[in-house]
Amino acid sequence: MNRLCVHTITTKPWSIEEAAENFAKAGVSGITVWRDALDGRNVQQTGEMLRQHQLEIVSLCRGGFFPSTSAKKREEAIVDNKKAIDTAAALGAPMVVLVCGADPGQPLSTSRKQIQEGIEKLLPHAEANNVKLTIEPLHPMYADTRSAINTLAQANDMAESISSKWVGIAVDVYHLWWDDLLQSEIMRCGRNDNLYAFHICDWKSPTEDMLLDRGLMGEGCINVPEIRGWVEEAGFEGQIEVEIFSNRYWEMDQHQFLDQIIKAYQNHS
Amino acid sequence: MNRLCVHTITTKPWSIEEAAENFAKAGVSGITVWRDALDGRNVQQTGEMLRQHQLEIVSLCRGGFFPSTSAKKREEAIVDNKKAIDTAAALGAPMVVLVCGADPGQPLSTSRKQIQEGIEKLLPHAEANNVKLTIEPLHPMYADTRSAINTLAQANDMAESISSKWVGIAVDVYHLWWDDLLQSEIMRCGRNDNLYAFHICDWKSPTEDMLLDRGLMGEGCINVPEIRGWVEEAGFEGQIEVEIFSNRYWEMDQHQFLDQIIKAYQNHS
Repeated sequence: MNRLCVHTITTKPWSIEEAAENFAKAGVSGITVWRDALDGRNVQQTGEMLRQHQLEIVSLCRGGFFPSTSAKKREEAIVDNKKAIDTAAALGAPMVVLVCGADPGQPLSTSRKQIQEGIEKLLPHAEANNVKLTIEPLHPMYADTRSAINTLAQANDMAESISSKWVGIAVDVYHLWWDDLLQSEIMRCGRNDNLYAFHICDWKSPTEDMLLDRGLMGEGCINVPEIRGWVEEAGFEGQIEVEIFSNRYWEMDQHQFLDQIIKAYQNHS
Repeated sequence: MNRLCVHTITTKPWSIEEAAENFAKAGVSGITVWRDALDGRNVQQTGEMLRQHQLEIVSLCRGGFFPSTSAKKREEAIVDNKKAIDTAAALGAPMVVLVCGADPGQPLSTSRKQIQEGIEKLLPHAEANNVKLTIEPLHPMYADTRSAINTLAQANDMAESISSKWVGIAVDVYHLWWDDLLQSEIMRCGRNDNLYAFHICDWKSPTEDMLLDRGLMGEGCINVPEIRGWVEEAGFEGQIEVEIFSNRYWEMDQHQFLDQIIKAYQNHS
């Protein structure tokens, strides 16, 4: 249990105050904060509230969305990502997770260049604030609008090309489980000290919604323990983050859902 | 127009007789027949009917679904694939397209082994009937149940490992457009004489259904002309097959839809 982190979006019906109290009571040790959970709050005080509950603040979700055919929108993305870095610093989160973005109006290769340019522009601000930037490769079904980085190989290429200790990678089993190069790319990621975060959930068969039908570990076809084994073999010692978007689970009593998350974490990860 | 093939499922509301008549009138030159379109018909006579309409029969869709945790089901799949080969031979189709299958209850690597074993078992029957078997790599969002072969690299590996002129590959832009290795893998596929079929449509943003919301060429984010260019550079000279599953288009008047297909083929492929 001292490595179990839950994302605020996983128990979306709860406010961050309810989540903090209930996570702490249940013995959860970490929390990843989504920016919308901070709406209308003093960020620094919220960070203190989380630490008073003995919760490790693992990441802030999310920055990114760098690519656009419009130069103005690319500039706006930089401004927004600087705000995300400021928020992470105020909250006391060591990193911002990046959903890197894509624009269906241009080639993926162009989007990838714009992602790298965006991250490089942020580096001085990230370093000045002691906040890392974590590239999360997303499933190819999100390549049109959410991310032009769709394999761990691509994320490794980019992190190695940028080559800064302020830039690393989040491995999420949901996005990467299908890739036959996953094991070797996880080892490469660890070898280059780029493995910053590990997200878990499961892929349901059938999956009824492309975004909001993720499963609890053990409920689908992903071998989470095997991938966790690779990640740990690659040197990762951080929190194991449960990140589930699910209309079905959000409709449930969230106390019961949190119980199920803990059981799934203990038995299937 | 002398390279435009349309799949029977693309205009699903039409019977194969209606499709043949309307495709021929519109100047379409090829047809790929889905097995359900043959239900209740004499297959040989249907093949003759298609040829009388001057339609080239490009493929029969579909065989495959080899993997299962149950040995009995794997045997049943072989029986069913032999039937598909018989049907293709009776129809006069030179190949059966394989949606290779996957079983969420076992690792993808196991499913891939079972796919290769299944194809190898079919080889004598394929050769005896002069029918080729065409591996179609499917998008990673179908890796749980529809196919454990999710990249052209994997399909190339398998076709080269089987190494028979009775086994090749179908490149479908919908499944493969996101892959940054696509161009080089298409060249590899052509170099090894494994490029047997080319399927087109588009990826809509947003895509509202994981299966039944494909777009017409030009309607989404896939650069179909660029991929077609690679396929032709790799030596492919066959029919360009329009394969669209779409609740939205199936609800339309199919004559209007066929007009749109032809325009999209002429302007965006």
